[in-house]
Amino acid sequence: MATDPLPRPDLIRRIAILGTGLIGSSLGLALRRAGFDGAIFGWDRDPATLRQARAFGAVDPAPADPDSDDPFIYALAADLIVLAGPVFAIADWLEQLSPVLSSSQLITDVGSVKGYLVEHARDLYNSPGQPGYLPGHPMAGKEQSGCIHAEGTLFQGAAWLFTGDSAVGRVEAVAHPLAIEWREWVLRIGARPVDLSPERHDLLCAWISHLPQLAATALSAVLKRSFDEVFASEPELHSVGGRALREMTRLGASPYSMWRDIAHVNAPAIQTALLALEQELTHIRENLKTPELRKAFEQANAFRLASPAKV
Amino acid sequence: MATDPLPRPDLIRRIAILGTGLIGSSLGLALRRAGFDGAIFGWDRDPATLRQARAFGAVDPAPADPDSDDPFIYALAADLIVLAGPVFAIADWLEQLSPVLSSSQLITDVGSVKGYLVEHARDLYNSPGQPGYLPGHPMAGKEQSGCIHAEGTLFQGAAWLFTGDSAVGRVEAVAHPLAIEWREWVLRIGARPVDLSPERHDLLCAWISHLPQLAATALSAVLKRSFDEVFASEPELHSVGGRALREMTRLGASPYSMWRDIAHVNAPAIQTALLALEQELTHIRENLKTPELRKAFEQANAFRLASPAKV
Repeated sequence: MATDPLPRPDLIRRIAILGTGLIGSSLGLALRRAGFDGAIFGWDRDPATLRQARAFGAVDPAPADPDSDDPFIYALAADLIVLAGPVFAIADWLEQLSPVLSSSQLITDVGSVKGYLVEHARDLYNSPGQPGYLPGHPMAGKEQSGCIHAEGTLFQGAAWLFTGDSAVGRVEAVAHPLAIEWREWVLRIGARPVDLSPERHDLLCAWISHLPQLAATALSAVLKRSFDEVFASEPELHSVGGRALREMTRLGASPYSMWRDIAHVNAPAIQTALLALEQELTHIRENLKTPELRKAFEQANAFRLASPAKV
Repeated sequence: MATDPLPRPDLIRRIAILGTGLIGSSLGLALRRAGFDGAIFGWDRDPATLRQARAFGAVDPAPADPDSDDPFIYALAADLIVLAGPVFAIADWLEQLSPVLSSSQLITDVGSVKGYLVEHARDLYNSPGQPGYLPGHPMAGKEQSGCIHAEGTLFQGAAWLFTGDSAVGRVEAVAHPLAIEWREWVLRIGARPVDLSPERHDLLCAWISHLPQLAATALSAVLKRSFDEVFASEPELHSVGGRALREMTRLGASPYSMWRDIAHVNAPAIQTALLALEQELTHIRENLKTPELRKAFEQANAFRLASPAKV
């Protein structure tokens, strides 16, 4: 993939990562791995998570003066601010930071929905005199949350979605001086920038991210009930499942705390995708003994052919 | 795990594997890896698959006399015959082999349903003068079929289910002299024998194997349609999915040819499990913005806690 040379290298010398959980900490580790040698301020509302991220080297050590260990101070001191929390937390930060930041500073985020955040940031960013906001979303994650599962290689080979800053309309890069350089860092940590509108982003993610998550949640929940009810007296049978079962229920461990916001904000698109899956399952259930089952397998096989696996 | 000493070691000196696809070939490789040094005759109705299995060393080379390259000759010459094809193929073999085998010989199989096969074998096996039949089912597999994906380590850590030979009733080992020794080989290739009745087996597998497969098939099929319809003009978006998507659709590549028999034979139990999943998805869809969503995530989280992952 061709990469543009940096027009003015090293505009980004200080990065603040607000939220040092799985994604925030993995990002810090990835930046260090890729050679970023500026400051990485880290902050998290959970002090233990923040201590851990610092101990792992995902973000810089605590400051000598405890009073300066403050998210606003870090944000003010940074060139680039990465908001790496749940969606509603990102929305709050966007609101609170806009009045205190300068137009030379750029906020980006890793939130799993974009339309809501772009709407939230409207009138607060990207106009003359305002700080910049480049909405972003790395297509990487794990079912385990928390800094303890962070990996500097988490984004390698992953798409990193960027959207414009208006809810609908054409895809365009946010025209902030730091935006090009941040995209360059995304490339350097092994990810692949992809541009689309916030609206398409949310529709796409309803299908390829939110639907698979909720399918795994539903499957895990019904299996839990079947173990509790149908196989309650046979605990020795609870562990005979193979790799297929483990994979299909791995995401069942995903935390509600993160998905609540996504489900709330992207509900209409998710409902459409869920309904399609329900109808397909019903069709399969009604055709277990008919040639229609072959069609379902053929369509499924064709999906896989179109998207080479790298699991 | 304690293992019983072999009462009469090396009763099994010649094994015939009928069906040298993924499971049959993996079994041959696993037996060699575990030190089995007797003959392993292999046969497959697809000559290319058989050639490959022989080239890989999963089964012994072709005989010097082409006329003896015959499944019946191999079965007659073997102490233990492993039937490793789709369910209906296994049923056919059970019928055809019973009249020609002796009571010193034991058939086992790797079929994904057991009640139907046990019913099929009734009156043909396990009575005085008849050959033995030990119904078996390793909980291991891949979405890719074929000898080319075979691995001698496929069964390591996997449960290997054994059922009695009557469709309902108590779990009991088939009382054939070779049955104990075959269970010992199953241990040696790294698997873990688990006993249950054919009826419980089919109910359990409907939940932990057939349901996850059909969920992956349904999910892959609806994603295929959404890519074809909703995102047809944006092919660059078809490859942005992350690890979660890959895992949840990996089984979408599974072949209809294998699952047709399973769906047909175990339809009632599968229908119950599918209906439960549909209802859970509907419940989630109707509660994306209510606290009921938390309950679904909590149940899903609890399932994962009960079955430690080893993906």
